[in-house]
This record gives sequence, structure tokens and C-alpha cells, in this order.
Amino acid sequence: MIINKHGNVIENIKKDGFKIGYKIHNLVSDENLTYQAKTTGLAIIELSNYFINNKPDIVFVIADRFETIAASIASSYMNIPTIHLQGGELTGNIDNKVRNANTCLSDYHFVCTKKSKQKLIQMGESKDRIFNLGCPSIDLAKESLTIKFEKLKFFKYTGVGSKIKYQDFIVVLYHPVTNEIEKTRKNIRTLFEVINDLNMETIWLWPNHDLGTDLASKEIRSKREKNKTNNKIFYVKHFDSIDFLVLLRKAKMIIGNSSVGIRECSFLGTPAVNIGSRQNNRERGRNVIDCSPNKSDIKKAVKKHLQHGRYKCDYLYGDGESGRKIANQIIKFKGELKP
Amino acid sequence: MIINKHGNVIENIKKDGFKIGYKIHNLVSDENLTYQAKTTGLAIIELSNYFINNKPDIVFVIADRFETIAASIASSYMNIPTIHLQGGELTGNIDNKVRNANTCLSDYHFVCTKKSKQKLIQMGESKDRIFNLGCPSIDLAKESLTIKFEKLKFFKYTGVGSKIKYQDFIVVLYHPVTNEIEKTRKNIRTLFEVINDLNMETIWLWPNHDLGTDLASKEIRSKREKNKTNNKIFYVKHFDSIDFLVLLRKAKMIIGNSSVGIRECSFLGTPAVNIGSRQNNRERGRNVIDCSPNKSDIKKAVKKHLQHGRYKCDYLYGDGESGRKIANQIIKFKGELKP
Amino acid sequence: MIINKHGNVIENIKKDGFKIGYKIHNLVSDENLTYQAKTTGLAIIELSNYFINNKPDIVFVIADRFETIAASIASSYMNIPTIHLQGGELTGNIDNKVRNANTCLSDYHFVCTKKSKQKLIQMGESKDRIFNLGCPSIDLAKESLTIKFEKLKFFKYTGVGSKIKYQDFIVVLYHPVTNEIEKTRKNIRTLFEVINDLNMETIWLWPNHDLGTDLASKEIRSKREKNKTNNKIFYVKHFDSIDFLVLLRKAKMIIGNSSVGIRECSFLGTPAVNIGSRQNNRERGRNVIDCSPNKSDIKKAVKKHLQHGRYKCDYLYGDGESGRKIANQIIKFKGELKP
Amino acid sequence: MIINKHGNVIENIKKDGFKIGYKIHNLVSDENLTYQAKTTGLAIIELSNYFINNKPDIVFVIADRFETIAASIASSYMNIPTIHLQGGELTGNIDNKVRNANTCLSDYHFVCTKKSKQKLIQMGESKDRIFNLGCPSIDLAKESLTIKFEKLKFFKYTGVGSKIKYQDFIVVLYHPVTNEIEKTRKNIRTLFEVINDLNMETIWLWPNHDLGTDLASKEIRSKREKNKTNNKIFYVKHFDSIDFLVLLRKAKMIIGNSSVGIRECSFLGTPAVNIGSRQNNRERGRNVIDCSPNKSDIKKAVKKHLQHGRYKCDYLYGDGESGRKIANQIIKFKGELKP
Repeated sequence: MIINKHGNVIENIKKDGFKIGYKIHNLVSDENLTYQAKTTGLAIIELSNYFINNKPDIVFVIADRFETIAASIASSYMNIPTIHLQGGELTGNIDNKVRNANTCLSDYHFVCTKKSKQKLIQMGESKDRIFNLGCPSIDLAKESLTIKFEKLKFFKYTGVGSKIKYQDFIVVLYHPVTNEIEKTRKNIRTLFEVINDLNMETIWLWPNHDLGTDLASKEIRSKREKNKTNNKIFYVKHFDSIDFLVLLRKAKMIIGNSSVGIRECSFLGTPAVNIGSRQNNRERGRNVIDCSPNKSDIKKAVKKHLQHGRYKCDYLYGDGESGRKIANQIIKFKGELKP
Repeated sequence: MIINKHGNVIENIKKDGFKIGYKIHNLVSDENLTYQAKTTGLAIIELSNYFINNKPDIVFVIADRFETIAASIASSYMNIPTIHLQGGELTGNIDNKVRNANTCLSDYHFVCTKKSKQKLIQMGESKDRIFNLGCPSIDLAKESLTIKFEKLKFFKYTGVGSKIKYQDFIVVLYHPVTNEIEKTRKNIRTLFEVINDLNMETIWLWPNHDLGTDLASKEIRSKREKNKTNNKIFYVKHFDSIDFLVLLRKAKMIIGNSSVGIRECSFLGTPAVNIGSRQNNRERGRNVIDCSPNKSDIKKAVKKHLQHGRYKCDYLYGDGESGRKIANQIIKFKGELKP
Repeated sequence: MIINKHGNVIENIKKDGFKIGYKIHNLVSDENLTYQAKTTGLAIIELSNYFINNKPDIVFVIADRFETIAASIASSYMNIPTIHLQGGELTGNIDNKVRNANTCLSDYHFVCTKKSKQKLIQMGESKDRIFNLGCPSIDLAKESLTIKFEKLKFFKYTGVGSKIKYQDFIVVLYHPVTNEIEKTRKNIRTLFEVINDLNMETIWLWPNHDLGTDLASKEIRSKREKNKTNNKIFYVKHFDSIDFLVLLRKAKMIIGNSSVGIRECSFLGTPAVNIGSRQNNRERGRNVIDCSPNKSDIKKAVKKHLQHGRYKCDYLYGDGESGRKIANQIIKFKGELKP
Repeated sequence: MIINKHGNVIENIKKDGFKIGYKIHNLVSDENLTYQAKTTGLAIIELSNYFINNKPDIVFVIADRFETIAASIASSYMNIPTIHLQGGELTGNIDNKVRNANTCLSDYHFVCTKKSKQKLIQMGESKDRIFNLGCPSIDLAKESLTIKFEKLKFFKYTGVGSKIKYQDFIVVLYHPVTNEIEKTRKNIRTLFEVINDLNMETIWLWPNHDLGTDLASKEIRSKREKNKTNNKIFYVKHFDSIDFLVLLRKAKMIIGNSSVGIRECSFLGTPAVNIGSRQNNRERGRNVIDCSPNKSDIKKAVKKHLQHGRYKCDYLYGDGESGRKIANQIIKFKGELKP
């Protein structure tokens, strides 16, 4: 298992009843552009060593984060059958390169949408190795429907900024774009101005550890310290997945460039304003309005969503039964490598 | 530059007038299945460090050897425009996974055949980033035409086995197949029996350092030491590229599973017997007869070629002007990353 | 050159007129106890590769930070003559282990005190390979004497906390102690209370990136955010070396556990209160009062120093001409490895 | 556990009733001088990761091979109490640097001789952390006394060269000297000539994988292939430890530069001719005659031993009960780090 410093992935895995066999600490300090490459290099070295000690029957590689390619390289180079989840989707960044490379290195593909399956066939993957089983993230979204918002213990999430009452609130989640670092600062500023003007309760999530995080954090911190904010923004680093989904279910809207606005929110029906190129080309449902990272565009999109309100549930990325289907499918595999 | 222990790549590069900026020693001992992964992991770590020190405008990644992905990962993760050579070709092995992953990670593609271009377009690469400039290896094949066989100093290549006169000889080059290790030993034995029966002068090249090399070397050595060979086999570890091509030009035939039989020999017109799955699906010209790794099949193919003799020159993989075209094209790039 | 994220070492090196040949980015994220080991492992891998490319005549290893052993391992394992600076000193921590291991791996020793030379002889190092040339850090201390305090641009050092006037101020520099992490938080609290009660202008320096830094930073930040401080503490991350020395020359006292209080301040004559075990056994002059990390002890020591005022210059760690002596000595070496 | 490619260490460990928790494959290809450093770097990275997953109470570091420092770095940097075995001995090479560095990094010392204990005290290690429990290798030597030579299955050790009858034989074991590579070839030649002239049955062991092995192997192979040998030399790569000791017990003499001639053979009473600097300064008993690597010196030493015959058992390196003593001592530790 590859570890990063954000969130409590490990706790979540344990909560789901899995035993963690081995943790790999491979995160190189993100002081410059080498860190993604070096983090990946370390992961390959240590994963391959773990694999030869523990001889997994199958390796399951997820999505498109930069370090995931470490798993698909280690397993494919060691002749271990490899499954890749979320292949065939389209985004607008290094994620795209990584996701497609993962596809090429993998032997089986669990895709999440019909279009993704078409894409993989076009790329040359064999039809009988591609399975559209939906995205497990939608399972969680489905589970979140069973949880009462009022029962959630949001107070346990510490953050900085204003205390909010979680009424008529919006959620902001904006990640730095890896190869557009220079623009990130500007975009965060713009986004901040929009939110400030909007004057609604806002939960602003700290971005993940892609390059540029420090930049983003600084920008947010600077605003906060200069008291240039309205009194309705609460900055928080992390929500447990399920709690975040319950939050989104209740939110008036999500603004930013996270995939959650497109994937989980399509199922939840939460309006999403998707800014900039990060999610370019990703399949989206009715709940998404795309806009460029400029102030008036974002405002226009926000207004439109506020007028419309929440959307109907859309099965675009799965029906919430993906986990079960995946487990059933893996059992059937005889584990043959791609010819 | 990534170093391996076989051959004198470095000398060749210097001979071509290039200065070597930095050498990376990343080869992990090939004692077990982890070595390809770990060798790659080390290369990523060191290449990225070199890149941030020397800020290359462009990174040029070649073909499909397992460690090439280290270059495409380091460069793409550091937002350096990446060119991949030989994308879109098809073979039957881990090479395929690596080559396609390299394509996905790269921003520009210099392909070698028309079909390869079609394949990349299908994979989703943008047409205007794909350039069919032929394969530089054919340039060398063309150059070899200008060299008189009689002028070559083959005596400088030390080896073991019998001394041969380089008359009516055949060339053998058989690489282990990574995910069919168990079969490799058997196939080498079969091949040896064919060659022994054929009773022609034979130059047998040591395989490269893919996993299983030791296996192959042992098998060859065992035969040799037991004197179970005819007296016409000369085992040699390495030829300088150009010398090898002159040798092939003169050879009656090449037998094995190397790409050289398909690529360079299509241009040279040298008959090639291609054994087993390693070159599966690679585009081939008239000079190639494919066969399974069994004795009678190989013998049949050999016989057919001996009857036919050499073939006409085929431009399938380029016209021998690829290097010049590539240089001209690189100069034109503005170095934009794939969107 | 091995890089870390604190301070602007690189700028300082350039300012001194040296060209930086190569930078190595080897810092692993300090999320847990593996980071010092992994950072060192990466440094060994990359330094050895740099060494074989650039074939240094001699490698110069400095002091006792954990990653310095990477240099002495890479060079000694590659038969490159290795000089170690600051061997034979005594402290109370992992630094001790690293410093002595560096000594064992090195061929020449540039020590800074007479006692250190004795210690190395006892350890079995050959007398004629040990040179007491003083500590180059004292050269800087000497240089600082030529700079007028009033000319310094302290305003360029941004920090948080109160603005101070640099009059009758004290300096605090307290590093976490690696194998006493659990106590670090407590000690910082105690120290804070002392400073708060003392009610003098205080410049508090952020600790370096040894394990536990986050802990320290949090503690400081927590105090600051709760406004539980007097209005005379200014927290700052970094001073340029020379500026820091000018500051110390002027300071009423330094409090903490940094070696600077013992080394440079012996030359400068600045009173130093040295807390806890981190500098245990390090040779010290009259300017140092040691105390345990408890409130009354620290207060007593502070009081004593305030009564006494500054001390006379002491040549214990060198006379400020070390750099010149070192350069002259290196030139003379024929570079023979230790037998 | 760190793996290398020579011998069957793993099998031996299992035979002794231990379960192997994890294997680390860290051996970098020994194509040039970087390999020892890089092999060590990789080991540090992977060992530290294993340590944080499995939290050992104590780490036990053995002797002075270059990669052993990886264990003492990983454990000391992670505050794990570290025991070092065989500290305080003296040899004439990089081994010396490594052994002493291991001492400095370790918290407890299990030495094998009285002089070693004195040496460690001189180096500054605390007397109550040093335990002279003898060398476990002598336990094996003692065990070998209980095994009848006639019962041994030496025929299972395949090698090349002549078949021998194991009567009146001598044993050769000569390791390359790391920082005298250039001389190694010459010395092996000289040694070969001596052995050839001696005309006794000889078992020549392949050297271990220190740098220069290839050199040595080539030299031996070259002799062998040119049939320039008498017909009494049998080259073999490996003996199981215990079998090797039984062999030595019976041998007329051991010639070379291995520590076994000095350590185990002092207990066994086997005459040893020790050539060159590799074992310089190591404590030795009456059974050892030292000589320079020149022909007449070696011959003189051989002659003297032949005249004298076997020596009496000497407890210099232990009485054969070391293992038991070590186990009993470890149990008593509370695991406190060196202050």
C-alpha cells in the first residue's frame, strides 16, 4: 500500500474490514518538479520487492494519480495480472497520460462508463478484457443517501476561518493544475473573490498534494490572515469520504475542478460548477456547468445553478453496486496476461 | 543516459560525434523478477534529478525496452515535452505494454510505418503530433550498403566455439521471452538442434539482458562444453551495429526472434526466419517467414528461404533518411505539451 | 550537492564565488521515522552516480547531520579520498553516531579543537591524518565583527509575531531532540513560559528539519494563535549566516540547544544558556551555562548571564582563519586512502 | 533480510529453524564502482520501510561487509537499539571503515576477542555495552568436529577443473582487494603459479561478489581454458558452511586472504598462509603465516606449514559456545539507545 500524508486512507481501509499487509512510505518532499517522478521511482522499487515476497495473484490499480503507475509497472514487469479501474476516461492533464499508460500496462479493465469501454476498444484493448462495472465511488454516494445529515458529526472536522451553520452552503474544492502552476495562484484569487461576493456559507477544502499545493495553501492563508474574507468561509483539510458525500448531498452546489463534482455529484444530483481545464473531456451529466477561470463566467454558472436547484439522479458513472460486481468479476479471473 | 552492461553503446554515441552529458548506472542485478522494475525505479529517480539540473528542452524516448518508460515518466511528470520513437508498432510481449505506455506519456510521436500512424490515431493521439519519418535503424542499414564486406574486421569480435570463414553463413539471434521463461530453455535447445543439423557456418549472438539471459547463456554454454555441436558455430556476444548490418547483408539468412530480422532485414533483403511469439503482429515484409518454435517448422522455413535466396529492398520501415528528417522536425517544435 | 528545503544554502554558496556542479534532490517527506534513512539512501544512490561521472579528487564531508553519511559512504565505497570536518567532537544524540561513523569512513580529518584531535587518535585514526585547523564557522564569526549592526537589513527577514526594535534582545534557537520526541513539546512549552516571563525582546528561530519539526512549529504556532504571548516575540524561519552572527554579537544572550551558542558564541563572547542533552559533552568555553529543561533552572541561568554580560573572545573552536588553512592543506594532499 | 546472489544463505537460515520474514533484493549490478554504494542505498530505503512496518525490538548487524552499514543506518536513524557483532577487529581495507562505522552507529557490541573489547573502549564505547561472547562462526567450527569427513557428500558440489580424491589436499580462497583492483589480477596469477608448482590436490573457491570478482573469475577461467594447469585443481563456487569447515579440518592447509584462515582455522588448527593486506592487523594465532603476494614468499610459507602440520586448537575467537551466550544476552537487554 502506498501512503501519502493527506487524509486517513488507512483508517478508512481498516474500517471497511481489510487488513493492511504492508505500508510503503515513498513520498518525496514536494519542493520541486522532481518529486512526482522520484515518489514514483521509490514506489516501484518497494512495490516490486513486496510483490516478490508476497506473490499477489492480481494487482489492482486505481485511476490516474501519478504514483499509480508504480503499481502497474511493478506488476506488469513481474508478470502479475493487473486490473486497472477507471480506464478510458478523459481529463485534461498529466492524469490523462497516467491513466492511459495504466491502461496499456494492465491486463484487465474495469471501466465506469459506456464511452470509456468504447475508448479502450479503440486503443486496442481486447473487448473481452473490458468490464463496465461502474465506479465504486458511486457505491459510497449511494450509501450516503442512507445517512441523515443531522446525524453527522461535522464538528469533528477542525479547520480555520469562520464557524458555519451548514445551512444553504456551498462547497469549494479547487486543485492546482500540474502543468499550469503559474495560473493556479491567479485562479484561486479569482475563485476567492467570487465566493466572497456570493456571501453564502462556504466550506473550502484544502487541495491535495499535487505540485502547487503549497502555493494554493499560501494563497488561502494569506487571504485569511489579511481578514479579506467575508465571515462565512470555513477552510478544512479533510472530510471522511462518506461524510463529504453527505455534505455534498445537502450542499447547494460544488465549485472547483474536482472530479467529485462530475462523478459522485451526477449520482447525487448536486449542481457543480467546473472551472478550467482539469476535468476537460470527462463525461458529465446535466448537473455540471463548465466555465473558464474568470470571474464573470463563474458567477454566471453559479447563478444558473442556484436558479435550477438540485438535479435528478444520473447513473452515468454507475448504479452504486460496483463493489459487489467487481468482487464477483475478480473471482472469475484465471489471471491470464494480455497476449 | 541510461547504461546497461551489454555492448558498447557509449562508444557508438561518441563515434557519432555526440558528447555524453551524464551516465546513469541503474542496472539492478538480474537475479529475480524484481530487476526490471527496480532498474526502472532507479532510472526514474536519477533521470528526474538530471532533468532538473539540466533542464532539457525535449526528451527523446526510444521504442519499448522496459527501462525506457523511466525516461517518459520522468519527463512527462516534469512537464518536459517528450518525443517517442517507434510508437504504434505491435509485438507480442511486455514490450507492447511498454511501447504503448510510452506513447500515452509522450507528446510527439515519430512513427516508422503508415500502419503505426493509424494505430496511434486510433489510440487517441492527435494526428498533428504524429510524424511518420521512418526508423533511424534503417539509416544504418542504408549506410551498411556502402561498406565492403571484405573490409570488415570481424576478427576483432572475440567469441567462443568454432572459427568460421564467413562464407555461406547464417546468423542466429534468439532472445528469451519475458513471460515465457520456462519455454525459453526448450526453444533454445530446439533451435540448437536445427542449426546443428543444418551444418552451415553459423554466427550465434548472445541474447540481451532481459530476464532469462542467464538461462540462455547456460544452455548455450552447456552445449558448447559438451562438444555436442558441429564445428561451424561461433558464439559471440556483440557486434558493432554497423558491422552487424554488413554481416546481415552478406548472410544467407537470420534465424531467431529479433526485430532486426523484420526491420533492418526488410530493407537489406535478408531472409529471416522468425520464431515464436516475440515479434507477433509486428509489420513485416516479404523477407520474413514466421514459424512456431518446433523443429520441423523451423526447418521448413529455413529450406524455403534457402531456395529463394535474398529479397528486394523494402521501404516498409523507412528509406534510410530518417535521422535527417527527425532532426529537421525536432528543430521545428515549439515544445507544447499534449493538451 | 545535497539539498534540503530550509534556508538558502545554494545562494550562500554562489555568493561565496563557487559554481554549483550538480544538485541532488533527495529529501523524503518527513511524515515518519523512515525519512532520515530514506533520505540518506537516496543521497547515496545519486551521489555515487555523480561521483562516477565527475570523478572528484577528494570528497569533503561536513560534521554530523544524518545525511552527511551518504557522502562518506559513497566516496569511501568508491575509493575516493574523503576528508571529514569536525570529527572528534562530542554531543548527545544520533549526531554523535553519525559524526563518529563519518570519522571511521574518512581518510583525513580536519578537527576544530585540541581535544577532538586527542579523541580521534584514541579512536585509532592515524596522527598524521588529523589536522586541527579550526572550524570554518568561526571564520564567519570573525567576519561578522567587521559589520556594523546598524547597517544590517533585518527588515528583510519576514516572520510572524511582534515587531521588535532589536534593542536588548535575546535569541532563542531550540531544536527537537531526535530520540526524545515526546519531551520536545513539553520543553518548548517550558521555554516559552520562561521567555514570556522574561519580557525582553526575543527573536525565536524556527528549528531545522530534523524529525519533530512539525511538532515544534505547531507548538509555537498554537501559542501565537492563542495570543498567549507577550508582545515582544518575533518568530522567524531563517537568517543568513552572517546576519545571524551579527545579531548574536549584539544579542544579550542566546537560549536553546543549538551548537551556535557553544561554537560561534565562544568566539563572539555571547552568553549562552544551553538546555538539555543535545549538546552534551561538546567542548564549551566560559560563555556557556548548561541547564536542564526545567523552568527554574533556565531562569537561574538566564539571570546569571544577564548579571555578567558578554564574555571575552575564546579561540576554543578556531581563530577565524580556518578556511584559508583548510584550502592550503587540501592542496598538499596526494589523496592516499587510509591503509 | 538482505539478499545476495552467492551461496544459499536463505536455505541455511531455514535449516537452522528460523522463519524468514522478508527478503530485500537490493543488489545493483556490479559493472562499476557505484555498485557497492547503490546497493547500500537501496538496502537503507527498503530496510527502513520494513522496520517501520514490523517494528523490531532490536536490530542485529553483522561484521563488516559493505552493505551491513545499511542495517545500522536504518536502525539507528529510526531509534531502534542496534547490536553489532565483531566490532573492534582490525583488517586492512574498506571492511575496516565499515566495521568501525557500524560500531559507531550501534548501541551494543558483541565482540569476539579480548583485544577487540579494548579497542572499542578506546574508541569511546561504554564498557558496559561491550560483551566478549566469542564469534558464532567458531560454534560452527566446533560443530564440524562432530562430523566424520568420510560421511560428507562433497560430490554434490559441482565445479570445473579436475576431479580430486580429497587426499592430502589444500584449499585456496583468495578475495579481490577492493582498493587494489589493479593488483588483484597479478596476485591471482602468482597464486596460480604457486599452486601449479605445488602439485597437490587443490580445492579453489570462487571469490565472493566484492568488486573485482569478474576479474578474478576471468583469470581463473582463462587459466583453465588454456589448460595451463596441473590436473589437480578443482574450482568450486560454494560450499555449505559446515561442509567447508569439515573440509578445512581435513585440509593440509588453506592459502589465500580469507578471514576463515585466521578465525575458524585458529580453532580448527588448520595451517593458513595469509597473503597480502586484506587481513592486515587482524588478530591471529599460531596457525597463520603471513606473506606478501610474491611467489617465493608464498612458497616459503607453504613449505614451513607442510613441515609443521596441523596446530593445536586455539580459543582466540571463541570457545564454540557463542550462539548460546548471545541469545542469553539479548534476552537481558532493555534496549536502551546509547546516550
